[in-house]
Amino acid sequence: MGRPLEFYFDFSSPYGYFAAARIDDLAARHGRAVTWRPILLGAVFKTTGQQPLTEIPLKGPYAERDLYRSARLYGIPFQLPSKFPIAATGACRAFYFLSDQDAALARQLALELYKAYFADGRDITSPDVIVEIAKDLGADQDGLTTALNDPALKDRLRSEVDAAIARGVFGSPYVIVDGEAFWGADRLDHVDRWLTTGGW
Amino acid sequence: MGRPLEFYFDFSSPYGYFAAARIDDLAARHGRAVTWRPILLGAVFKTTGQQPLTEIPLKGPYAERDLYRSARLYGIPFQLPSKFPIAATGACRAFYFLSDQDAALARQLALELYKAYFADGRDITSPDVIVEIAKDLGADQDGLTTALNDPALKDRLRSEVDAAIARGVFGSPYVIVDGEAFWGADRLDHVDRWLTTGGW
Repeated sequence: MGRPLEFYFDFSSPYGYFAAARIDDLAARHGRAVTWRPILLGAVFKTTGQQPLTEIPLKGPYAERDLYRSARLYGIPFQLPSKFPIAATGACRAFYFLSDQDAALARQLALELYKAYFADGRDITSPDVIVEIAKDLGADQDGLTTALNDPALKDRLRSEVDAAIARGVFGSPYVIVDGEAFWGADRLDHVDRWLTTGGW
Repeated sequence: MGRPLEFYFDFSSPYGYFAAARIDDLAARHGRAVTWRPILLGAVFKTTGQQPLTEIPLKGPYAERDLYRSARLYGIPFQLPSKFPIAATGACRAFYFLSDQDAALARQLALELYKAYFADGRDITSPDVIVEIAKDLGADQDGLTTALNDPALKDRLRSEVDAAIARGVFGSPYVIVDGEAFWGADRLDHVDRWLTTGGW
């Protein structure tokens, strides 16, 4: 079995949401696992000088249309949230807290947070919402509530984001396959082919 | 036969070059023609506040790698030019000058200019290079040389670019199919499907 794919994403990224729905199955077809790594594009954009997609003149209105069109193409429920984009710090912290105990549970939380935000229109910047979703998956409610205010967990997220930037991660989704980087939900086809051919 | 696809591109855009190599065949499979429309991203970026791809921190180095990888995938000769990006005003003007006489010849010129720049490393900002390439295709050398300095042709290009921006064109390649816009060489698969299904 080859090395796990490294999957970087922001909980506020619709294209990250689309990729999250497909990446595990894609990797599994090639006998690969996936290491999930939520990041904060707000921090990344300070390095790159980029802006949130929907705020760019001309590109913003196009992006909205492309998002709905892509969601229909992939068959994924999607509604652009009224509060968008968001700084999903709490969601990221909850993910890393759980991932140290149970990587599968953390991945399940990520999928549910994405669904809550992009399909059900819930506010995943709210700690109450995050904890409720985690609890429904069987996570320890009190432990998570306490952890979300723990400075150590805040530092953990910061160091994860810094490490991602140091690796060159500038967008979401961003997938690294055996050292080769692929950016964008529309590059999953290239990832699939890369895994099939071993590169070209 | 349906309406022609509208294909906007910048001669300095590698992804535009990749799309140019494929779009006519794609359209023809659906019984469609393609209207080619070169633009200047430099003017577009003044509206959108965007930067040339390869100049963006983190994203630039990735983009270079993705360009070579995409070229290999599509089987298209590619070498990032030493002078990149360029303002391809002369190339655009030559295109519009020829397109009023012979649309097929103008399209052929566009393909040859792209090849000269991205495959052969020639400087297509040089009027001499542009005229030489056009002459080899059978264009009137003196007529084109004169036209390239004609203020009317400069105005023509400016109005084409303004019209593109007014339509929302913010990048290259940008394809409009029956009013539906698709941005990026990696959206040609969506264009293909859109033409097959009539939309989704």
